[in-house]
Amino acid sequence: MEDVQNQKDLRNMPIDRVGVKGIKYPITVLDKTHGHQQTTATINMYVDLPHEYKGTHMSRFIEMLHGFRNEMSLKSLAIILDEMKKQLNAQSADIEVRFPYFIEKKAPVSGSRGLMNYDCAFHATSNADDKADILVEVRVPITSVCPCSKEISEFGAHNQRGEVRLMTRFKELLWIEDMIATVESAASCEVYSILKRSDEKLVTEKAFSNPKFVEDIVRDIAVKLKADKNITWYSVSVENFESIHNHSAYAYICSDQGMVGFNDE
Amino acid sequence: MEDVQNQKDLRNMPIDRVGVKGIKYPITVLDKTHGHQQTTATINMYVDLPHEYKGTHMSRFIEMLHGFRNEMSLKSLAIILDEMKKQLNAQSADIEVRFPYFIEKKAPVSGSRGLMNYDCAFHATSNADDKADILVEVRVPITSVCPCSKEISEFGAHNQRGEVRLMTRFKELLWIEDMIATVESAASCEVYSILKRSDEKLVTEKAFSNPKFVEDIVRDIAVKLKADKNITWYSVSVENFESIHNHSAYAYICSDQGMVGFNDE
Amino acid sequence: MEDVQNQKDLRNMPIDRVGVKGIKYPITVLDKTHGHQQTTATINMYVDLPHEYKGTHMSRFIEMLHGFRNEMSLKSLAIILDEMKKQLNAQSADIEVRFPYFIEKKAPVSGSRGLMNYDCAFHATSNADDKADILVEVRVPITSVCPCSKEISEFGAHNQRGEVRLMTRFKELLWIEDMIATVESAASCEVYSILKRSDEKLVTEKAFSNPKFVEDIVRDIAVKLKADKNITWYSVSVENFESIHNHSAYAYICSDQGMVGFNDE
Amino acid sequence: MEDVQNQKDLRNMPIDRVGVKGIKYPITVLDKTHGHQQTTATINMYVDLPHEYKGTHMSRFIEMLHGFRNEMSLKSLAIILDEMKKQLNAQSADIEVRFPYFIEKKAPVSGSRGLMNYDCAFHATSNADDKADILVEVRVPITSVCPCSKEISEFGAHNQRGEVRLMTRFKELLWIEDMIATVESAASCEVYSILKRSDEKLVTEKAFSNPKFVEDIVRDIAVKLKADKNITWYSVSVENFESIHNHSAYAYICSDQGMVGFNDE
Repeated sequence: MEDVQNQKDLRNMPIDRVGVKGIKYPITVLDKTHGHQQTTATINMYVDLPHEYKGTHMSRFIEMLHGFRNEMSLKSLAIILDEMKKQLNAQSADIEVRFPYFIEKKAPVSGSRGLMNYDCAFHATSNADDKADILVEVRVPITSVCPCSKEISEFGAHNQRGEVRLMTRFKELLWIEDMIATVESAASCEVYSILKRSDEKLVTEKAFSNPKFVEDIVRDIAVKLKADKNITWYSVSVENFESIHNHSAYAYICSDQGMVGFNDE
Repeated sequence: MEDVQNQKDLRNMPIDRVGVKGIKYPITVLDKTHGHQQTTATINMYVDLPHEYKGTHMSRFIEMLHGFRNEMSLKSLAIILDEMKKQLNAQSADIEVRFPYFIEKKAPVSGSRGLMNYDCAFHATSNADDKADILVEVRVPITSVCPCSKEISEFGAHNQRGEVRLMTRFKELLWIEDMIATVESAASCEVYSILKRSDEKLVTEKAFSNPKFVEDIVRDIAVKLKADKNITWYSVSVENFESIHNHSAYAYICSDQGMVGFNDE
Repeated sequence: MEDVQNQKDLRNMPIDRVGVKGIKYPITVLDKTHGHQQTTATINMYVDLPHEYKGTHMSRFIEMLHGFRNEMSLKSLAIILDEMKKQLNAQSADIEVRFPYFIEKKAPVSGSRGLMNYDCAFHATSNADDKADILVEVRVPITSVCPCSKEISEFGAHNQRGEVRLMTRFKELLWIEDMIATVESAASCEVYSILKRSDEKLVTEKAFSNPKFVEDIVRDIAVKLKADKNITWYSVSVENFESIHNHSAYAYICSDQGMVGFNDE
Repeated sequence: MEDVQNQKDLRNMPIDRVGVKGIKYPITVLDKTHGHQQTTATINMYVDLPHEYKGTHMSRFIEMLHGFRNEMSLKSLAIILDEMKKQLNAQSADIEVRFPYFIEKKAPVSGSRGLMNYDCAFHATSNADDKADILVEVRVPITSVCPCSKEISEFGAHNQRGEVRLMTRFKELLWIEDMIATVESAASCEVYSILKRSDEKLVTEKAFSNPKFVEDIVRDIAVKLKADKNITWYSVSVENFESIHNHSAYAYICSDQGMVGFNDE
């Protein structure tokens, strides 16, 4: 049977990335408290394609994913990238794995237990030098209270749910749980899945006592990240789903100097 | 050229709805203030298919849509439904037209002008009796302040953006603008696209003075709709994007007695 | 601390549904092959609220969900509904649970193994009579080849991915796996996560030999469901993401006679 | 009334981008055939914030948008960026405008007329040097036929809808219509909103005679762009919604050498 993909290509045009996109797969990730956590992921896997080949072999990506689904860790991602380059004769490989991650959280007064969900992602890339570059991303829901609204009003202050999106590169393993804690401590108040009345009183008063703009939250997170010697790069955005508007307020800081262009969020 | 769709079908299975789904088209709708408004829509068009025919003729739906795009009103929807039944030899026809609708709104103190967007839809159906049944839907962003949080806390109260989804049937033309006004007057406060500081003070204080659960908002809207003799049917839901949780609070009332089953929102 | 929700309400307006919407939670469902399967779900939980109460108690929904997350089966859903009615003093209760479900599938020639994902849902309702009414929904990706295109063209035929959405009520337990098998056997060809070249040859030829309109697929499924004495109600839609258009072709059959109105898909 | 935003900030942390996100607004864009086209957009507007200021003034973004909505062209975007920097005392400004764009297209044999929709975007940035950098993006639906499937099968070939996402920078004005034409000419066949049977025969046969992998399409587009002296930068991706899988095949080429990192599509 003819292997069309292996035919010679004459256009002299290498391809930066080719592969499979939007595969849904159950995976197991590391969990700081329980060792492992089973979840469901949406995955993209790409390699480069040298100019002389007509096509890549798409089924091999799924075979590799099938084999590695029971441990998607920073360690195994580096191995998957090596495997992708080897099996597809490629110089570079990328894998992106998005998944909801669940953490048990106790309500602050009643101690009621519920699970919080955080959308997370691993973005792993390996180029010709064979060293895996791995970004970890967490998206953390938060509460924010508007300082301007509080200051100028006789009573009350508008507040809303926001979402912080934090991406980091680091030297020693950084747990998802620790990235989330950094974000939650910078909000007007953190968010819970379950709150009894005694808890609702506490979070209302805590948030009102701690008003913050998107600008404040993004800065407070960036200040902490900058001081952390383990973190070698970060980007952090805060989006507030404004309760008084039908659009969001947004702020973004990246550790890179002179960042230009859109980050396409 | 063989007309495969016109072939005889022997399965003895009539089809309730067949047609085209998810067409994006620019349309013109009626505007209470300006006469007409141009917007962009996502459209579904269906007819029934008697058991004896193999298929319908999909291209005719698009031809009809192309002809009617310059006036998508309640009047023209009835004509489109008749045309669909005639051109496709059908007993029933459905058309659903979803579109953002824009209304200029002045900030309450400064008078600054901005446009608010409301997602709207027409759901029009015609059965064997040839009378068009038309539902109008509006989705209205609102502010809500939690009465429990306000009551139990020393200061502050959690609040958030919510979305009200109102669907109505009526006797005399009911303007989208009037449906939106009914909803906005039942919220803790309405939402604006532009607010200067003097406006922000007013909406903060107004909302805080007017705390409402999703239960309160849905009831206040339903009470008004029930009292309106022009409205023959309604369903209304309120969804609050809770600022203290990562999920929504939700309430729903339908004018039908004994509604059962999911509405699949 | 004041229980605002328990206050008397004077508007004389009962609420059909009130509760929590869009909660993300890890759950365990039954698996025909492996006994159990862990996955992640998006969940809505509602009860009715009699006219005399101001509000429901939202945190109790999450407490119940937390307790039942380790077995979300048809049996436990009936228990959850009873518990919801009891703990919230309600006459009716609804729960909707959406989740990706994974099934290992072997490629038809090479036997290569991969996991297929199917979006599924349970829709469970209990009214005053205390009997749970449970719908099971599966969404199944398929391949369809256009019979008209094949007939009128010298060579080739346009084909595309489609999605079948099947909902059923039944007497004896109907496995998700069996609902999926019913759908896949009615397509031009079923879809796989992994196909080697020998498999790709087979599915291409099988699909081309078996051209079907959305009308054919929806009818072939309905004929099977109608003949199955275990199934007491069904609705089935087929949506083709047309390869020659930027919109979908769609067909829908419901076992109810004289269905009217939009199903709001 | 206190201007909280204007307060001194002591964290010594400048913010890369701050502003408003997800505003929906009706806009008018240039149209090669008709001069102007009214459509609806989703818009983000950001500026930088020096380390010494606590916050930006969000309402000014909406005021500027309101003023410029009647002409969103490459020329006016440069003016908006200047205005943003001036009114918000900023060194840099970004605006992103996403909108559906409609073009009338005649079916290739019957000449039937329908409108095609293309999702487009302007990404405009201005930094300290005051020169606007503008990217134009188009997303173009296409048909692709798999060369491998055609080669190895006795008859037929799997095909599907795909989406090409093309972004360009250029010297002289490049029309959206011309970017779309470049993409459509590289597909197995272009996509239409309306096709009669004579047209369906032609597009089926044309596509089958012209099989292309995602790799072929992305290369054929890149070869054309590279040869065009007016284009100074491009990135192009092709995503095929595979008819035989429940995931996509994907390929990406960027004119930059040594592109690294994820583009977060």
